[in-house]
Amino acid sequence: MKAARLHDYNENLRVEEVQEPKVTDPHDVIVKIGAAGLCRTDLHIKDGDWKEVQDGAELRLPYILGHENAGWVQEIGSAVSNVEVGDTVILHPLITCGLCHACRAGNDMHCGKGAFPGLVVDGGFADLMKTTARATIKLGPSLAPKDVAAHADAGLTAYHAVKKAVQSLYPGTKAVVIGAGGLGHIGIQALRALTPTEIIVVDKSEPALELARKLGADQTVLADGHQVQRVLQMTDGAGAEAVIDFVGEKGAEKEAVQMTRNAGSLYVVGYGGALDVKTHEVIFREINVIGNLVGTYNDLVELMTLANQGAVTLHTSTYPLDSINDAMADLEGGRLQGRGVLIPEGA
Amino acid sequence: MKAARLHDYNENLRVEEVQEPKVTDPHDVIVKIGAAGLCRTDLHIKDGDWKEVQDGAELRLPYILGHENAGWVQEIGSAVSNVEVGDTVILHPLITCGLCHACRAGNDMHCGKGAFPGLVVDGGFADLMKTTARATIKLGPSLAPKDVAAHADAGLTAYHAVKKAVQSLYPGTKAVVIGAGGLGHIGIQALRALTPTEIIVVDKSEPALELARKLGADQTVLADGHQVQRVLQMTDGAGAEAVIDFVGEKGAEKEAVQMTRNAGSLYVVGYGGALDVKTHEVIFREINVIGNLVGTYNDLVELMTLANQGAVTLHTSTYPLDSINDAMADLEGGRLQGRGVLIPEGA
Amino acid sequence: MKAARLHDYNENLRVEEVQEPKVTDPHDVIVKIGAAGLCRTDLHIKDGDWKEVQDGAELRLPYILGHENAGWVQEIGSAVSNVEVGDTVILHPLITCGLCHACRAGNDMHCGKGAFPGLVVDGGFADLMKTTARATIKLGPSLAPKDVAAHADAGLTAYHAVKKAVQSLYPGTKAVVIGAGGLGHIGIQALRALTPTEIIVVDKSEPALELARKLGADQTVLADGHQVQRVLQMTDGAGAEAVIDFVGEKGAEKEAVQMTRNAGSLYVVGYGGALDVKTHEVIFREINVIGNLVGTYNDLVELMTLANQGAVTLHTSTYPLDSINDAMADLEGGRLQGRGVLIPEGA
Amino acid sequence: MKAARLHDYNENLRVEEVQEPKVTDPHDVIVKIGAAGLCRTDLHIKDGDWKEVQDGAELRLPYILGHENAGWVQEIGSAVSNVEVGDTVILHPLITCGLCHACRAGNDMHCGKGAFPGLVVDGGFADLMKTTARATIKLGPSLAPKDVAAHADAGLTAYHAVKKAVQSLYPGTKAVVIGAGGLGHIGIQALRALTPTEIIVVDKSEPALELARKLGADQTVLADGHQVQRVLQMTDGAGAEAVIDFVGEKGAEKEAVQMTRNAGSLYVVGYGGALDVKTHEVIFREINVIGNLVGTYNDLVELMTLANQGAVTLHTSTYPLDSINDAMADLEGGRLQGRGVLIPEGA
Repeated sequence: MKAARLHDYNENLRVEEVQEPKVTDPHDVIVKIGAAGLCRTDLHIKDGDWKEVQDGAELRLPYILGHENAGWVQEIGSAVSNVEVGDTVILHPLITCGLCHACRAGNDMHCGKGAFPGLVVDGGFADLMKTTARATIKLGPSLAPKDVAAHADAGLTAYHAVKKAVQSLYPGTKAVVIGAGGLGHIGIQALRALTPTEIIVVDKSEPALELARKLGADQTVLADGHQVQRVLQMTDGAGAEAVIDFVGEKGAEKEAVQMTRNAGSLYVVGYGGALDVKTHEVIFREINVIGNLVGTYNDLVELMTLANQGAVTLHTSTYPLDSINDAMADLEGGRLQGRGVLIPEGA
Repeated sequence: MKAARLHDYNENLRVEEVQEPKVTDPHDVIVKIGAAGLCRTDLHIKDGDWKEVQDGAELRLPYILGHENAGWVQEIGSAVSNVEVGDTVILHPLITCGLCHACRAGNDMHCGKGAFPGLVVDGGFADLMKTTARATIKLGPSLAPKDVAAHADAGLTAYHAVKKAVQSLYPGTKAVVIGAGGLGHIGIQALRALTPTEIIVVDKSEPALELARKLGADQTVLADGHQVQRVLQMTDGAGAEAVIDFVGEKGAEKEAVQMTRNAGSLYVVGYGGALDVKTHEVIFREINVIGNLVGTYNDLVELMTLANQGAVTLHTSTYPLDSINDAMADLEGGRLQGRGVLIPEGA
Repeated sequence: MKAARLHDYNENLRVEEVQEPKVTDPHDVIVKIGAAGLCRTDLHIKDGDWKEVQDGAELRLPYILGHENAGWVQEIGSAVSNVEVGDTVILHPLITCGLCHACRAGNDMHCGKGAFPGLVVDGGFADLMKTTARATIKLGPSLAPKDVAAHADAGLTAYHAVKKAVQSLYPGTKAVVIGAGGLGHIGIQALRALTPTEIIVVDKSEPALELARKLGADQTVLADGHQVQRVLQMTDGAGAEAVIDFVGEKGAEKEAVQMTRNAGSLYVVGYGGALDVKTHEVIFREINVIGNLVGTYNDLVELMTLANQGAVTLHTSTYPLDSINDAMADLEGGRLQGRGVLIPEGA
Repeated sequence: MKAARLHDYNENLRVEEVQEPKVTDPHDVIVKIGAAGLCRTDLHIKDGDWKEVQDGAELRLPYILGHENAGWVQEIGSAVSNVEVGDTVILHPLITCGLCHACRAGNDMHCGKGAFPGLVVDGGFADLMKTTARATIKLGPSLAPKDVAAHADAGLTAYHAVKKAVQSLYPGTKAVVIGAGGLGHIGIQALRALTPTEIIVVDKSEPALELARKLGADQTVLADGHQVQRVLQMTDGAGAEAVIDFVGEKGAEKEAVQMTRNAGSLYVVGYGGALDVKTHEVIFREINVIGNLVGTYNDLVELMTLANQGAVTLHTSTYPLDSINDAMADLEGGRLQGRGVLIPEGA
């Protein structure tokens, strides 16, 4: 089959013929990829930023990238009972054991034996991908792989962070979304669907803010250097009950703390930078910093329900799988509108 | 009356005669101080570390320090119905409005109009102190002011942090307490009373660790430079579900992050240093950093219940109010065993 | 002043001249009533159904009914700081102490010393009513007393029940609302504003169901004897995650149990009937039955935010205070559209 | 192998030779039974009380009873990775799919495709029993099957109910345990281990109350007809924040409501009777009735941690499997001390 593999850090992916994956365990599921989302993490991986994690997981190059996958079930192991060959599916990004304390509490992303296709094992920038029964979610007839693939990580992560914030976002509160890009534009829609909070969106791009307003933002702030001040003005000088930072670098991660109200919470989603906050501020303002790592299987099921209802839609640009390096260059160069999605030939 | 006042930053307090406080509002309560705890924050205040907060609150020197107070009701305003003259009371550290959203949700410490005696208005290093009905908690006959005064801030803060951690500390989990001093030794007892977790205590002092073991620590670790490694060994290499950092400076605040398990929470209580953690670590390990600021009125009521039951005891060294500067020097020099408590003459 | 008083159970109220209330406590607030909602509980009171509660609270007839009140501040006690004379206000239905454990946790309705105007002390079917600072909520300029008075109990109770249900109503769940009348039609709007759940409304009146659809119901079921079966069909035979029963009598309270999904919750709001469910069913289906009593002060603040945003609107029929007995007769006879609201002369 | 089967309702079980279970699915686990607890539900099953449930699950008599099982792994399917042949294990009472929303949220007991060995498929009153990987929990070396088997249902159910109550049982609260028998005596120990609440135990047997005091009860009340009055006296006339009813019949289920404080919760565990409470009382007192059905897999893991630490111990009487009908008669006749445990020959 055809696949896009990373042979060496800081090099382009090579689109080449590789062996097809085989069912070797009774839970295995082979999926014919219909669409695979392109994520900023793919750029980070290419740059070697995940090398430490990958070395810990004993990854050997080359391997196939792509961790936002949807498609159709091609083959199943003997113990698989929840999907059948031909079903349209989206894939939870992790392969998990189902038996550890984390899995048994629903926190799939903290499985002690979890594997992450596209990050440390072969992913979905290919014709076929191997995962397990526990990662497959059957889609309704109204949803096509290309319309939802990017939800498998981008949407899931945004939804997971929003869901943690729900209980503190009662009427009269405000939530700040920093970054209205691939994840942020889904976060806005999830906030709209799940809470009555007033949504303030901060981005450095006017078109992104325009999209944000269409998707439900109540107020938007151009990140022109005065964004902290503007947000404080919009929140009676106090900051917002919840700040969801989809950027996490280049200063946004520090401004996010300043935008957080006393007793409020900052949800970290984007990465690249570092928190740098005095313990005195943490305690005197009693603020919380909440990490977010993808989401649970049920989170993705719930997000698919919203997608099916039309309450959350993805803005995407599609590329043939062969053009993966163009897509990555467009993403890096800021030329990619919405989420990039790779489509294998014939899908 | 006699009172210990700060006339200038970086100078000793002056014990001197000052005017007695008067009831001016129907809710006012004048308390004859029985005991007032000495806190590391008093050293920070003397050093000018709280100057910014105090300036914001328009504090003018000189003023009376002392924010951990207990005693007997001396006089009450016309609208006070919950205590009577002569009642033994401990004082919640804040004077609050009772009417804002925070107060109405029980979060007294986030009152928009709150005042903090001993920090920004006159405190309890004196014969008398003025507070309001909302800050007074009537004590049972078995509890004397000198036995509980230090609970008003030190105990309350420790209890507040522990109570937040309760729901994640089910059987089989581990909690790390960093610092077994004034706050930490109460935190250990609160963990013991409220949870079935295994308690690991880290301190650089062997006597403090010995006390920790007596109070319920399951394991102790001397902070000799290998404390992170030792804690990881005790937690299968994964870290603890909850880390409560009562130090918050001199590197402890960074080690605390390393001791926190994936999906776990770090409760910041001590201060002085700064968090410095990459957003990548926050998200990839999905950890939470939780600030803690004193506690609610009900937290203090509950802590007094534990004190009354003998489930939590304070280790104290008493000084006459006249010796306040000796006490502060002892605290600074590490010569003060347990929590220092100031006793006015005739109390 | 003019007031409508109950002189004897099972008799019409008498609209008569009575003494004006006076400020006697520093917290007292005298409100000029702008509008007072009429509640089915007023009929129950007249019928003597609350006699036991009233006797326990040592109520002596005659007294003024009316527990859903809004108006303008007429006079304030010396310790009142949150409202000024002339402010437009809605009144939380309880007079509370502010100092007990329940008040300090925000649960005003469980204040050990609470009084309930219109139920056990003089209420708002009058020109003036006395309450305290803790019960007053200042309204924005867009809200008039007659537009919100009925929120003080009806809306508050519906909102309180919905807010408890929020955390279990994730995307893909279903909520059943039994009764789309005075409380139910607000419950539907609160569910719509606070959750992404699918809302199924059951009522025996077609016009009520039509209103329900306008307000956000996804599906409606006429209570024609087959309502349990219909709801089960709409929920894959399993029932709904949340059932909010605004009727609570005449069989609805038993059907509500049947409509509740395994592991789901039935929120009881209406009353008159009795639960009759085998402990075997409670445990084997692991269902919860959750009582609801008005709501907290903050609940009412949040509901006013929704009202101010136009997210929740009340459907009312107004009567002059003089016509109170006509209004009660209309309510009893099923002729009252929406919530009945009494308007004093000159308001 | 030898097994005790029910051939007809209202008849003694027959201990007889039956075919051994076989591994047919890759997840299957065959366990050599070391001990199987005897539960009051076994008497109910014999009496036909579960016939409706069993018919719904298409049970055909005869079948093997016994739903509290522990032993050693005898044989495993090809996909089983969490236990090995020879491991000592306790069995979660349900066989679950692992893939539905309930399973993915950790709520194994609400699995849509769950089977319940000993209730609707063959259970553990036998030499061998078949379950799946998802039901097995590996035990530490200090725990033998006969010491823990009864935890698989009795202990698990008690622990599950206690764990729900934890967050409302802060210092100063009171919890009432009704029934200090097979489940209740574990509930008392779990309350002691997990909460600082004051425990009041009600039972009609003095020896049971004596055991309760040894296990941590703070106060005990003989159920001599004045138990409601006594509990109210012990709770300032208000009742307890949590009432856990392990009896659920013969009037206890009604007294339990009376013992519940306003805003408190009644946890229903025992069954046989019926709740009969006016909706007026449910709302005016805002009480909650919480059903409890066994517990989650993680609940059982946590309970095994407590057992391993010695924090929870079972009081048992052992019988050889051959004497199953004697054991059942002893249980019915009130002659069985502690929990009855059946031991197969050679175990």
